[in-house]
Formats: sequence, C-alpha cells, structure tokens
Amino acid sequence: MKVAIQGVGTSDFAKQPQLSAGDLVALAVREALADAGADGVEAAFVGTCFGEPGIAPRTLHRLGLVSIPIVTVENACASGTTAFHLACGAVASGQYERVLALGVETMTARFAGAIVPEMTDAEGAGGMALPSLYAMSASRYLANGWVTPEQMAQVSVKNHAHALGNPRAQYGGSVTIEEVLASRPIADPLTLLQCCPISDAAAAVVVGAPRESMRDVPVRSSVLSSGALWDHRTDHAWGFELVGSVAARAYEEAGIGPDDVDVFELHDAFTIGEIVTTEALGLAPEGGGGELVAGGRTTIGGAQPVNPSGGLLSRGHPLGATGTAQVAEIVWQLRGDAGERQVDGARVGVVETMGGGASGVDGNAAVVAVLGG
Amino acid sequence: MKVAIQGVGTSDFAKQPQLSAGDLVALAVREALADAGADGVEAAFVGTCFGEPGIAPRTLHRLGLVSIPIVTVENACASGTTAFHLACGAVASGQYERVLALGVETMTARFAGAIVPEMTDAEGAGGMALPSLYAMSASRYLANGWVTPEQMAQVSVKNHAHALGNPRAQYGGSVTIEEVLASRPIADPLTLLQCCPISDAAAAVVVGAPRESMRDVPVRSSVLSSGALWDHRTDHAWGFELVGSVAARAYEEAGIGPDDVDVFELHDAFTIGEIVTTEALGLAPEGGGGELVAGGRTTIGGAQPVNPSGGLLSRGHPLGATGTAQVAEIVWQLRGDAGERQVDGARVGVVETMGGGASGVDGNAAVVAVLGG
Repeated sequence: MKVAIQGVGTSDFAKQPQLSAGDLVALAVREALADAGADGVEAAFVGTCFGEPGIAPRTLHRLGLVSIPIVTVENACASGTTAFHLACGAVASGQYERVLALGVETMTARFAGAIVPEMTDAEGAGGMALPSLYAMSASRYLANGWVTPEQMAQVSVKNHAHALGNPRAQYGGSVTIEEVLASRPIADPLTLLQCCPISDAAAAVVVGAPRESMRDVPVRSSVLSSGALWDHRTDHAWGFELVGSVAARAYEEAGIGPDDVDVFELHDAFTIGEIVTTEALGLAPEGGGGELVAGGRTTIGGAQPVNPSGGLLSRGHPLGATGTAQVAEIVWQLRGDAGERQVDGARVGVVETMGGGASGVDGNAAVVAVLGG
Repeated sequence: MKVAIQGVGTSDFAKQPQLSAGDLVALAVREALADAGADGVEAAFVGTCFGEPGIAPRTLHRLGLVSIPIVTVENACASGTTAFHLACGAVASGQYERVLALGVETMTARFAGAIVPEMTDAEGAGGMALPSLYAMSASRYLANGWVTPEQMAQVSVKNHAHALGNPRAQYGGSVTIEEVLASRPIADPLTLLQCCPISDAAAAVVVGAPRESMRDVPVRSSVLSSGALWDHRTDHAWGFELVGSVAARAYEEAGIGPDDVDVFELHDAFTIGEIVTTEALGLAPEGGGGELVAGGRTTIGGAQPVNPSGGLLSRGHPLGATGTAQVAEIVWQLRGDAGERQVDGARVGVVETMGGGASGVDGNAAVVAVLGG
C-alpha cells in the first residue's frame, strides 16, 4: 500500500520546563490530528531518548488515544525519525490505515545544570561527549583543507537567518561569521553558535493511505539503518558512509537523485555535521560541503535550500522530537505553507537524521526519507 | 507471510551486576542464533525499560550485528514482548526474512539500594508503586470473597516449585503456603514471597519464515494493545479487561480457544497478578482463579500448566527481558526441550505480558501471543 502524510503538528521549540511532556504532546498531536482531519489513529509509535518508561501511553491517554497499540522507540537523535519510519512501514504493510508518529523530549528538566557523560558509556568515560566527536570531524576537515572556519560558521549564519522566518524556532538571529567564530569555545574548533541548544518540544506526524481530495504528502521512501563499526583511521569522517549508504537506498527506492530534491531538513547538530551530511547526501563531493554552503546554494533563495526551519542549530534539538519536526517542516514546505521561510516551488523534500555515538564500542543510526513529488 | 520462531536463547536470571548489558545480550543472542542455525539477522527490535539510550546498537555491535535497522522499544514490563510483536509483524509483512527480538535489563545496578517512585509519575507521587497497585487488586479479591490468602500463596508455592526444574531461574524453592504467608509484608496483603525479584538478564528470539526441515515453532497470532483509562470504581480488577480483550483477539486470530492451550507463560509479577490473568485468559471464570490454582490444574502435571519456568515470581523479572524469556520458555516446551519442567505433550502455548501502571493518568499495555500447534 502507498503511504502519505495526512497531517503534522508541533509545539514551539524552546527551553520551556513549565510545560510537561504531556502538555507538549497535546499541542503537537492535536494540531496534527486537526491537520489530518482525523479524530484518532489505529496505532502510535513514539520516539524519545530520555523520556521515562510509560511516557507514551501516559501522554497519549490524556488525548483519548487509548486501547490501541502504542510503542515507544529509542534510536538516539534519530528516535523521532525511527518512529516515523515504523509508522510508514505499518501503513505500507496494510496493518493499519492511520498511524501516529510522535517525537517528544523534555531536556531542560532532565539536564538541569549540565549534561554529564555517563561513565558506563565508553565514549563518555573517555571524555568524548558529542561536541568532542563532532569537533574531531571538524579538525579533520580543517586539516585536510576541506573546509575553512568561515565556511563552517556560514552554516550557523544561514540557519539562524532561516529561523527568523520560523515563529516556532528557538534561536533565530542575524548573526555574522565573525560573531559565530568569536562566540564561546565549546569543543575546539566548534564555538557556541556552532552547537545546537537544549530544547523542550514535541512534533507529530499522522501517516496513512493517500487521499485524493486532501493535501496529503506522499512518502516515496524511508530507509533506516544502524552504522557499521567506525574508528578514526577510516577514510571518511564519522557518519559519512552510514548517511551516504542510507541516502543512496532512499534515493533509489524513490527513483530520484539528489539533484531532484528541492529542499532538505538534515541533521545539523553541529555546523560540521551539516557540511559532512550535505556531502553524504550528494549535494557536493566529499570535501566540497564548505564551498557549497559558502556559495549560497543551500540558503533559502538558492537552488537547494537546507534546513529552512533553522535546523537543529536554530529551531532547536529536542532529541526525540527532532525527526518528526523535520518531517513536519518538509510537509509545510511541499504544501506551500511555510510562510516567510517558504522555498518557492518545492515539490520534493528529503529528511535526514543521524543518532548515536561514533566509536567502535558505540553505535549510531540514520534515517533518510524522500517526501513529495 | 507466515511467521515462525527459528531459535531462542537466554542468559541466566539472577542478580548478576558483574555482567554488563553487553555480556548478557551476548549470551542470549549467540545462543538464539546458534539455535536458529543462523549467522545474522536483517533487523533487530530490542525491548528494555531502563536501558540507557544507545543500549541496543552498543550491545549488538559487539556481536557483529551492524548495518541493519536496530530499534529499541519500551512498553514497561511488556517491552520484550512488544519487541517480539514488532519482529513478527516485520516478517509477516514480508519486509524482512529474519529478525531478532531481544529483551535486556540490568536492574541490580540501576536500582542499587531501593526503587524509589519518581515524583514526576502521578502514581509514584501518590505512593502507588506497583506492589501497592497489585495489593489493591488483592484486597478487592479478598473483600469480594473471590480468593483466599492461601490460594494467593499457592501461586508462589507452585511457581517456586516449577523453578526448581529451571537451571536458569533466580529463586527455585520448596516453599509452603505457611512460609509464603509468613514472609515479610511488602504491600498488605502481599508478602515478600508473593512479589517478583529484581533481576539482570537478557533473552533473545529469532523470528523468520517457517522452514520445513527445522524445529521452527509457528507464531499463530500476536496482539498488542494499550489499555483504556481505568479507575478503581470500574467493575473489574486492574488489567482484567485489557488482558481479556487482547487475549480474545489473539485466540480468534489463532482459531483456538483457551481450552486448546497446553501451557501458559503469563505475567505473575505478584501472586494476585497470575490469578487475575488466568481469569482474563479464560482458564477460569472471574473470581475463579484462586480455586483454579488451588486445584492443581495449572501445576506441571495438571491439565494446563501455568508458568512452568517459574514465572516472574521465581525465574525472575528483568523487566525488558521478561517477554522474550516467556517466548523462549514456550518454545522449549513445545519442542520437548524443557527438561525437568517439561509439560508432557505440549503442542500449543500462550505468552501474556502486561506492563505499565493502573490509574487514569497512567497507561498500560498487554501482549498475548499464541505459539505452536
């Protein structure tokens, strides 16, 4: 059976600890159901990283979504996109006619004060929190001459500017390359404005069979995979091969190539992440992602805008909610509902999320989905 | 496509904090893959309640299970059975030919000292930890005259005796009704020997298409649902209606009734739980579960043994691992591989797990699967 997105909805993206997970879920799910013209779903997949056991039924019961299969899924930063992937599969197989994919995370309360790496985590025990892992990729790219500090900073400039057009974004702003580079160092060479913020949010997607009379957005493909083992001696930066292989399969299943895509929402948890990911997605050759962003092609108004929502850097990165928020943004773009940040004439969009750590003792996962067309 | 269980494996069930989640997973998955005659799987669903984000790829990568879709799922005590349910669905839909369902939990380290209800949990904030919730069902049954303290204790006597035949069980023992009732009070009327222990374990199930030449066990049905809202004013004890409705669908899809089932593994986290569940599964009328167990029908050697493994009470209850362990036990029983605890001539078996809290602000879930025949 073919699969389409019938409706989407999100909360605002912000540090908003005064709202519970249930409050955020209610905002997102009510909007998505209304958008879909639906009063319920037959099943729900709920992505969260740090949500407490039972978060999914507890928050959905408030909305009358009871007596249906409800499954909470975790796949690090790709948790929301994993929920979306499973929802699409459940509709595609004919098991259900309408399924909810939800992502939710309340990070402010969970990480009050600071994020301390867990000592049971081999990477955490080695001091390799995620900013450090991305900083190693950035250092490698700088050492190879594949990127300049200014090109990395341009990712932040672009995404903060994009977020100015997104009323639900956490941190829109007209920042300059100089301001980005002069902001507080986090994990050298990454500065504060090159790192995504902690956020509280929920985002919901209603998936079902396509309906002719509606503005449903077709799901042309969705591919999920965990990564192979990786270490720093391999030929490519962390994530490049995983995202590249998942994207290749997603393009093939959709019958398109990267040149056919009008708009991307991809995993820019750190500026270098967007650069490596645009290369893995085929927008630029390996080592060409810095020039790509500097040339303006991925800015709104360019040929292939990337992260018109502001991305993780500026819309915010509420771990489990990010993937479904990316899907929501692409749906708004393909319907022409994106307001000030609208990508003119967008017909085909791609969502990409990567989650997890990097080393051989850790694991990561990626989802790439092709929507519209 | 039809679905069968190709192989199962588990670790021991014990307080064994010297073993990491990865160690436990390795024991269970290696045994299950060898049992299936397989050297890998195409996807994996991993159930855990309190496993840290990333636990699934981290533990599976050690075993060479990389570059496949890996999804961690949480559904309270039904997390492992939910992973099994999704694995069966992924094979049934033709999406994959061989899928791993894994459950894992390391509770000793997580709950060193004591389990303290979380204040963000409405039930926890009200002091209604799970022993209290089950104690309320027990009080109601006692008040109704539906069960006697001795009948409740008999569940513990039976399951501890069953566990004597299970070398991997946590607490086998020849305990008497008097000893059960005289053990330390936990949540009146439930005493220590009527409550499941904290455990560390993993259990794995390899699901795939049935192979004629092998000892594969058919999956005749698997049904998952969350519960409706419930409060103490309704006509039935907590869980009765949810488990009853899920079981009715599972029986119908399998084309059988409860009388056709030779052996059950069901959710006896507390003695009263087994009594209510046997009623919900149709082994006895409502209010007749106490007489059922006292009469010996559900003891090994009786007509319809329940929890030959020792159940959650005596094999142990490592939350996320329980569901897949229940599946493993039924597979061993149906193959005639259950050793001293073998149910003679078992051809059809049922697995039932219920997870989550009870009140209107919380949510619960149940899975019932019919295997064999």
